[in-house]
Amino acid sequence: MSDVPARVVLRDVGPRDGLQNEPPVATDGKVRLIDALGTTGLTEIEAVSYVHPRAIPQMADAAEVWGAVDRRPEIRYSALVPNLVGAHRALDAGFTDIEVVVSASATHNLRNINRSSEESLDAIAEVIEVAHAAGASCQVIVATAFGCPYEGEVPEDLVASYAARAHRDGADSICFGDTTGMGSPPRVRRLVGRFREQAPEATLALHFHDTRGTGMANLVAALELGVERFDASVGGLGGCPYAPGASGNIATEEAVYLLDELGVETGVDLDRLLEVADLAQRLVGRELPSRVLKAGPRTRLAV
Amino acid sequence: MSDVPARVVLRDVGPRDGLQNEPPVATDGKVRLIDALGTTGLTEIEAVSYVHPRAIPQMADAAEVWGAVDRRPEIRYSALVPNLVGAHRALDAGFTDIEVVVSASATHNLRNINRSSEESLDAIAEVIEVAHAAGASCQVIVATAFGCPYEGEVPEDLVASYAARAHRDGADSICFGDTTGMGSPPRVRRLVGRFREQAPEATLALHFHDTRGTGMANLVAALELGVERFDASVGGLGGCPYAPGASGNIATEEAVYLLDELGVETGVDLDRLLEVADLAQRLVGRELPSRVLKAGPRTRLAV
Repeated sequence: MSDVPARVVLRDVGPRDGLQNEPPVATDGKVRLIDALGTTGLTEIEAVSYVHPRAIPQMADAAEVWGAVDRRPEIRYSALVPNLVGAHRALDAGFTDIEVVVSASATHNLRNINRSSEESLDAIAEVIEVAHAAGASCQVIVATAFGCPYEGEVPEDLVASYAARAHRDGADSICFGDTTGMGSPPRVRRLVGRFREQAPEATLALHFHDTRGTGMANLVAALELGVERFDASVGGLGGCPYAPGASGNIATEEAVYLLDELGVETGVDLDRLLEVADLAQRLVGRELPSRVLKAGPRTRLAV
Repeated sequence: MSDVPARVVLRDVGPRDGLQNEPPVATDGKVRLIDALGTTGLTEIEAVSYVHPRAIPQMADAAEVWGAVDRRPEIRYSALVPNLVGAHRALDAGFTDIEVVVSASATHNLRNINRSSEESLDAIAEVIEVAHAAGASCQVIVATAFGCPYEGEVPEDLVASYAARAHRDGADSICFGDTTGMGSPPRVRRLVGRFREQAPEATLALHFHDTRGTGMANLVAALELGVERFDASVGGLGGCPYAPGASGNIATEEAVYLLDELGVETGVDLDRLLEVADLAQRLVGRELPSRVLKAGPRTRLAV
């Protein structure tokens, strides 16, 4: 327990990873969500992705959304980009933090972007260069890091080696994405351990999904390894394209509630965040899976 | 991590604690559920409670249910009883394992059974005697052990002292019930630690609810303390009377899935259990909160 950090940074990925897996939300609803998240104490928000609208129609209005956001100087807004074209669009639009993805599973990478993981890593090296030339930072997300919906097991050594390559190529941070919620505490310990052997000085973030109910246990396991950066989505917005009705990212308010209980600071006002989770629920028009949203924190007593 | 047991016992409390917090299910549906659970490898099932039908109409047919269950010799079926009258009914019906509850929160105990916790403990001592005289075992469940929906904090010393008293009075095991899901890993460590100081040789079980998303993290924290007995309800059947729509007990299949990942044996066949969770979902006619039920285990690949 001694390695548990005193403070962690949560990045809310609801506006991007969450809404990407929901029925389309109107542009002004997305802007309201991002702006509301900006009032909770969160310091990082994944705002949009610059992907082709044919691939992900939910993100077709990325430029309009970003143009309308009330950008707060204390918040780092990021954009996901699929390639160099997307990177230029994001950087031209004023993003100073971008993310790019490679899937550690050959099948998943091939099916998603029709190239090998190694070809993706080559392209990513260019994206990193372009970002740095523009004075921006670039995070490399290694997807299916804890398992692949097509292949099942993805060897930790392979995942770690791809991440280490991206780190050598200049990635400002590495994020292991548990794309379909296949992680568990022993897998978290093994992968983080392998990666630290290869790139001990890299900045590491973890991106858990709660598809199989292991999200909070994974969060605790990672904290105990000293990991300080986590993704989550407000309300538990989102889903899993491979399992209809399944949960998506861990819910930000569940993470904040648990971290508060653990005495780990997040800087986030849970009550305010719950109001934003309620807004998210109204925007997508369905009951979101977040349990803290339904029950409130333990301080909300019965009358 | 060294104290993690190689094997744990899961008790499915779906037929009682789960169904008690659902709209009424027909008698034969309850019997089907209990019988189906008996085919999963589970060795303990909380079958019914003998409470007054005015208090909990969902359990009014306890005698009929129990009379129709296909009782398997390898399974320990238990009944919850509120008092001496209920204990006699359960024992006369052939139960050899009964449970009785005291709430550690004075307000919760008073509102639920209109006496002080100390008065409840006096009555429980009699129930234990009666059970033992009949050759049955008696577990004492200490409810609101991690917090109370009315009072909020319930001091761990108080909870532990009530449990220690029940242990001295002959309880065969103590179960700490997280009645409304207010537990978290540090609270689990503190309460288990306090209780072990007072009753190091007692048999301890933990009963978590997932009302605030901390259930699986609590399970891991307790495993790391060497706790070997846990309650869970198939499908995550149940709810929370203080928070409409909130989750109830941790889902048995989520516990089995996580324990499988941790390398802790349960003896439960997860695939078969998922079939029973699906049955439970059909019996109550609503989508149950279990995420493993929705997404399947990580071995269920996309095509």
